[in-house]
Amino acid sequence: MDVNATIQDLKKQMDDLKQSDEKNQLAMVVFSGDLDKLLAAFIIATGAVAMGLEVVMFFTFWATAALRKKKFKARGKDFFGKMFGFMLPKGVGKVKLSKMNMGGMGTAMMKKLMKKKNIQSLQQMIDLAAELEVKIHICEMSMDLMGFNRDEMIDYPHRDFVGVASFLEVAGNSKIQLFI
Amino acid sequence: MDVNATIQDLKKQMDDLKQSDEKNQLAMVVFSGDLDKLLAAFIIATGAVAMGLEVVMFFTFWATAALRKKKFKARGKDFFGKMFGFMLPKGVGKVKLSKMNMGGMGTAMMKKLMKKKNIQSLQQMIDLAAELEVKIHICEMSMDLMGFNRDEMIDYPHRDFVGVASFLEVAGNSKIQLFI
Amino acid sequence: MDVNATIQDLKKQMDDLKQSDEKNQLAMVVFSGDLDKLLAAFIIATGAVAMGLEVVMFFTFWATAALRKKKFKARGKDFFGKMFGFMLPKGVGKVKLSKMNMGGMGTAMMKKLMKKKNIQSLQQMIDLAAELEVKIHICEMSMDLMGFNRDEMIDYPHRDFVGVASFLEVAGNSKIQLFI
Repeated sequence: MDVNATIQDLKKQMDDLKQSDEKNQLAMVVFSGDLDKLLAAFIIATGAVAMGLEVVMFFTFWATAALRKKKFKARGKDFFGKMFGFMLPKGVGKVKLSKMNMGGMGTAMMKKLMKKKNIQSLQQMIDLAAELEVKIHICEMSMDLMGFNRDEMIDYPHRDFVGVASFLEVAGNSKIQLFI
Repeated sequence: MDVNATIQDLKKQMDDLKQSDEKNQLAMVVFSGDLDKLLAAFIIATGAVAMGLEVVMFFTFWATAALRKKKFKARGKDFFGKMFGFMLPKGVGKVKLSKMNMGGMGTAMMKKLMKKKNIQSLQQMIDLAAELEVKIHICEMSMDLMGFNRDEMIDYPHRDFVGVASFLEVAGNSKIQLFI
Repeated sequence: MDVNATIQDLKKQMDDLKQSDEKNQLAMVVFSGDLDKLLAAFIIATGAVAMGLEVVMFFTFWATAALRKKKFKARGKDFFGKMFGFMLPKGVGKVKLSKMNMGGMGTAMMKKLMKKKNIQSLQQMIDLAAELEVKIHICEMSMDLMGFNRDEMIDYPHRDFVGVASFLEVAGNSKIQLFI
């Protein structure tokens, strides 16, 4: 056996293996626009940063509506864009529970209860996520479909507009992946 | 130190580690039978192939109904089988949005909008997935439960009928796992 | 090249890499309290044990209600606690399908059908999971929010009350992660 050559070969294999190893990262698809699921997503995201993970949240479909500004007068939207703009919740203040909404009463009750129990509101969690450098990637295709434009989205500091390829690249290098 | 023996041992450990390493593969449980979630599943699946991943979609529960043929006259079904056959959507053309369906109006609007924005329909995405060799594994227990038989399912070229053990084996060897 | 030093270094790198390797473990967030999703969660969990995986189920939000005892007279609950206690399903016997519930008829039909097809009931699956040493971790924050106390939860043998950090630690070391 040629010891030196074998050792060189082992070294190379080791480097390859390390390269393919996953990063200390969490990738999350946030698909749902419901208050309860958005809360779960941000609790997991901020908790993960506290544990030393990097976090990328990929907002798509209904969830994109929750990232809209509270007040925004869109101009020049076509019929569908106006419809979606009107019918989907305008930002985190307007999202509802997936169950027991009961015409808004259940959602209002849940918000009151969270306050009472000292659990942060969704808005406060987003602010915390921003501070903790959680990345929010927004699916461009979903925005296009629903007629949302970039100016309409909240000014989150670690925000990006991406496609599905970007999510898959992040997910492939992540230790944990979730679809919420 | 016996150099040769140590090197042999390192080689063995390296091989073991490589064996346990995950494949460049994505495993997806598709549980939901809603149009929006099915679209998300196929967008992720076809996008993943484009990035060099192998993809296995495991269709279970409500999602199995979406894989039924448009026209199929089932014979010899029992009462429950007939009920489910009648009540669940018959194929991709009949699935509905999880939100804002509004008696079918929202779903129709979304389909029209996708066409306008040049986004492929669910049927076109399935055709693309077939071309890209995305594997579709259908949960046999779900089919049994809902009284669907194999002939009733679409003739997808990379189709298989499996149990949960098969999914778990695929998932355990995959880089990315999602439950949609 | 100093052969001995290089080999020692390779050995160390190998140990580090092995340490960072994921355990043969499945981590699942069970968020939904619907019968169909709970069934899927327990079918996957018990199937995974059969394949040699360790399994940790992290029950949060609506799913926590399904782990309540059938009969439990809570005392000293405040208004919200009483409301949630009354409105959310009291244990696995009361959970409903996410679709086609039809005022309970669909859920009853599904249960009858499962019996006919020799598929275990949710209660039987939980019993099996207990036997197979599937771990159930219950989210303390969710319990606090909904006003459930520990005595109210079923006496599952491998039960624990935890926070999100605990889930993330388990998930980071797991081969498979799912959000159901």
